[in-house]
Amino acid sequence: MKTSSGNFFEDFRIGQSIRHATPRTVTIGDVAIYNGVFGPRFAVQSSDAFAKAIGYERAPVDDLLVFHIVFGKTVPDISLNAVANLGYANCRFLQPVYPGDTLSAVSEVIGLKENSNRKTGIVTVRSSGFAQDGSLVLEYVRWVMVRKRDESAANPGDHVPRLPTAVEPSLLGDACPPINVDAFDLALSGSPHKFGDYHIGEKIDHVDGVTVEEAEHQMATRLYQNTARIHFNHFAESKGRFGRRLIYGGHVISLARALSFNGLANAFHIAAINGGRHVAPLFAGDTVYAWSEILAASELPRRSDLGALRLRTVATKNRPCEDFPLKAGDQDDPSVILDLDYWALIPR
Amino acid sequence: MKTSSGNFFEDFRIGQSIRHATPRTVTIGDVAIYNGVFGPRFAVQSSDAFAKAIGYERAPVDDLLVFHIVFGKTVPDISLNAVANLGYANCRFLQPVYPGDTLSAVSEVIGLKENSNRKTGIVTVRSSGFAQDGSLVLEYVRWVMVRKRDESAANPGDHVPRLPTAVEPSLLGDACPPINVDAFDLALSGSPHKFGDYHIGEKIDHVDGVTVEEAEHQMATRLYQNTARIHFNHFAESKGRFGRRLIYGGHVISLARALSFNGLANAFHIAAINGGRHVAPLFAGDTVYAWSEILAASELPRRSDLGALRLRTVATKNRPCEDFPLKAGDQDDPSVILDLDYWALIPR
Amino acid sequence: MKTSSGNFFEDFRIGQSIRHATPRTVTIGDVAIYNGVFGPRFAVQSSDAFAKAIGYERAPVDDLLVFHIVFGKTVPDISLNAVANLGYANCRFLQPVYPGDTLSAVSEVIGLKENSNRKTGIVTVRSSGFAQDGSLVLEYVRWVMVRKRDESAANPGDHVPRLPTAVEPSLLGDACPPINVDAFDLALSGSPHKFGDYHIGEKIDHVDGVTVEEAEHQMATRLYQNTARIHFNHFAESKGRFGRRLIYGGHVISLARALSFNGLANAFHIAAINGGRHVAPLFAGDTVYAWSEILAASELPRRSDLGALRLRTVATKNRPCEDFPLKAGDQDDPSVILDLDYWALIPR
Repeated sequence: MKTSSGNFFEDFRIGQSIRHATPRTVTIGDVAIYNGVFGPRFAVQSSDAFAKAIGYERAPVDDLLVFHIVFGKTVPDISLNAVANLGYANCRFLQPVYPGDTLSAVSEVIGLKENSNRKTGIVTVRSSGFAQDGSLVLEYVRWVMVRKRDESAANPGDHVPRLPTAVEPSLLGDACPPINVDAFDLALSGSPHKFGDYHIGEKIDHVDGVTVEEAEHQMATRLYQNTARIHFNHFAESKGRFGRRLIYGGHVISLARALSFNGLANAFHIAAINGGRHVAPLFAGDTVYAWSEILAASELPRRSDLGALRLRTVATKNRPCEDFPLKAGDQDDPSVILDLDYWALIPR
Repeated sequence: MKTSSGNFFEDFRIGQSIRHATPRTVTIGDVAIYNGVFGPRFAVQSSDAFAKAIGYERAPVDDLLVFHIVFGKTVPDISLNAVANLGYANCRFLQPVYPGDTLSAVSEVIGLKENSNRKTGIVTVRSSGFAQDGSLVLEYVRWVMVRKRDESAANPGDHVPRLPTAVEPSLLGDACPPINVDAFDLALSGSPHKFGDYHIGEKIDHVDGVTVEEAEHQMATRLYQNTARIHFNHFAESKGRFGRRLIYGGHVISLARALSFNGLANAFHIAAINGGRHVAPLFAGDTVYAWSEILAASELPRRSDLGALRLRTVATKNRPCEDFPLKAGDQDDPSVILDLDYWALIPR
Repeated sequence: MKTSSGNFFEDFRIGQSIRHATPRTVTIGDVAIYNGVFGPRFAVQSSDAFAKAIGYERAPVDDLLVFHIVFGKTVPDISLNAVANLGYANCRFLQPVYPGDTLSAVSEVIGLKENSNRKTGIVTVRSSGFAQDGSLVLEYVRWVMVRKRDESAANPGDHVPRLPTAVEPSLLGDACPPINVDAFDLALSGSPHKFGDYHIGEKIDHVDGVTVEEAEHQMATRLYQNTARIHFNHFAESKGRFGRRLIYGGHVISLARALSFNGLANAFHIAAINGGRHVAPLFAGDTVYAWSEILAASELPRRSDLGALRLRTVATKNRPCEDFPLKAGDQDDPSVILDLDYWALIPR
């Protein structure tokens, strides 16, 4: 059999290490498509001149583009037979990525737990992204519900890893060089608001909405070499669960992040993702809105340049966010599609 | 309030200078998307080898891509609350832009005039685009009708700037290095017709038509970091004036310019835009055609390499242009969407 | 007449040489769009680090992107008035193309044969693509059925060139430097299967299907500066033969090639295309699947690094390929859209 049909639940073993295929040189071409699809406006990633002035070699690649490329590599081995992508934890960005860097990925299986129906199980992996010199760029944990090939395959026993609910502030900032805050021009960056201007509990409606098109989504998600079939095959999906193609969950994260510029323009770097939940599916034609809450604000040890804001960013579909929709009684508000918890760095 | 809702009419003051956010490094990735969306075929912008042979450092960035990026920066401050983009004047391209250059923008308010309904007013700005070294790349005047936040806000008095109806030929050509006309290979450029082959009053049907897709338009317009809501939010616009998203007027200019290759292949550089009018809206699914008239032809002082053609390029929707549609009696022909007056340079 | 309406059958002469317009510098921006639209995952083209390790200067441009750009240049002169693109033969890739190279094209008319209806004729051209230094990058033969402008124009007599049914293995490999097979990391490339693992007659279902969007197709095909009207003008085509825009045949080739990664991951370089037939038209909204058969396997003279697999890759629309659809009795299976015969190189 020359073709791969991906791994099923019983193919995974605790401690197994999987080197993923297709290393990928990230280029300014990829950055341009990312900008065309999502429209981010953070000055550091947009301008070589701005980035150099504050201390970067040049404009770094958007953190989420790095995340999506590393994530995309893991799909053929980890989640081709997934029923659902359940969650992320402990995602840390560890060094800046510049156009020209080549990314590759390795995953280690750190959790396995069969579901009681014996048809599926939960696989937890720690995935790591590396640069061409072998240095670690990114790591994160995700867990997915994966089908079994054979329902009678042996139960591997329950292995549920302990994961932090949030990344410690002392572990943030490795992917951000020392910033020359005096050179961080607040007219060019688009907002006067710095670390000290945000307070815990503050909620920000990001105001704008953006409608998703199939072609945009397919181009972006293929750019990451993500091969999950549910995103690309209308013929098969028209007979499937949703009757249509599903938008990649990471697409929603990038849309919400780009929308968050309006209110968080100086929070230029995602240092860590504490957790995330894709609350409901998104389809082409839907319009995405977002709002954020400041969950925490922390100084960083040994850094006087930047502070960290812990943000909850919630995305909705076809529903403006001026009243910060989240729950409807005990349930999720039906408009909510993403509930993301992350640390962003912002000048002090 | 951390988010910006843009300026309203009463927020502008004569003489006010606004430094716009988000400097932007233009890359060959941006150029590729521009080429994919519009399909220009002018040899100078398409080929480093051709551009070098005639005197450029390398292939310069398409003039209109430069214009759109500078324009995009002004949107959040100038026209987020605009009812209509009324016109352009006195737009001059002042130096070539190459991939890797970083563009930023500043606007000065040079006109204010409240409308008699007191709900809106006309704001005129001179916007300037700068390269990373502070040198001026582009400047243009535009005027927009902007809503008032508060109808009772004071009338600023009438300030209507005098604007030239056309840029003087003596002011053209700063963005074009001396051209080695012997190296301008007419087989490679796609046409034998040079400056002397065109005559005043000549009309050219550009023949082809091109259908606009939402995804193409959104990707291009987001690439310019243009944030005008009417272009991106189907949910809101489905309840709005047109019942759907509106295509950015500059998109029509770029489509018409690319179509004009068929008939004007050697008119490789837009040196100035004298004026332009978006006669009617364009929507995704429409097919754009274009024709041009030679309004004037001028030699350039101290330049024997190039001449300038003053062109009127008219774009239509869903209407071929073999009979040069423009007026229907006293009215605009209902198919006409753009009426653009500009100077293009062409070898002598 | 300043505009070109393309050549008609009676405009061609045997032996005529046509230098095509618009040289084109291929960039990493173009590569990114190609990757976004087609999603290829061959490691050599994806990663500078991988490509350098095995012997390339850096990641070469995908062979088919080179083909499409050269092909696109020929359209305005050769096939603007074509009724049908009938076939390809003897296509050879002769040197690697890297981002930054500038491509131009020349065609020679090598065959002319009027059809008995006297309304059309078959034009055969040998098209050659050149790099900026004048070196030959690619050549291929194609024949198209072209309309006559004037049915009474003289019959040029029958000139039907002899063409090889397949490129000789001894002529393969010029575009591929010597490969360091030890550095060809099979975990990174995505498959353990090398030259010796494939056998003649073996059939491989490439499993996945991908749905085509108008915007993706238009962006890719405009990127090649292909101006064939049937691809871009909904207004005209809505009244035409198919009632809608037609997808460029080369788009199907690129989709099938990208799908073939699943089963042929190490067959990283297309060295030659022996022939190809666009069996049926493809439209936006259709989902493309593909399967391949190993027609032959050949060692290459003086090369111990690589072998050549002669592949027949068949693409279908809206029809999975687990049973390798091809014929339905004497007819083509109605789902089949492409039947392509080519040589791909793969490590030994």
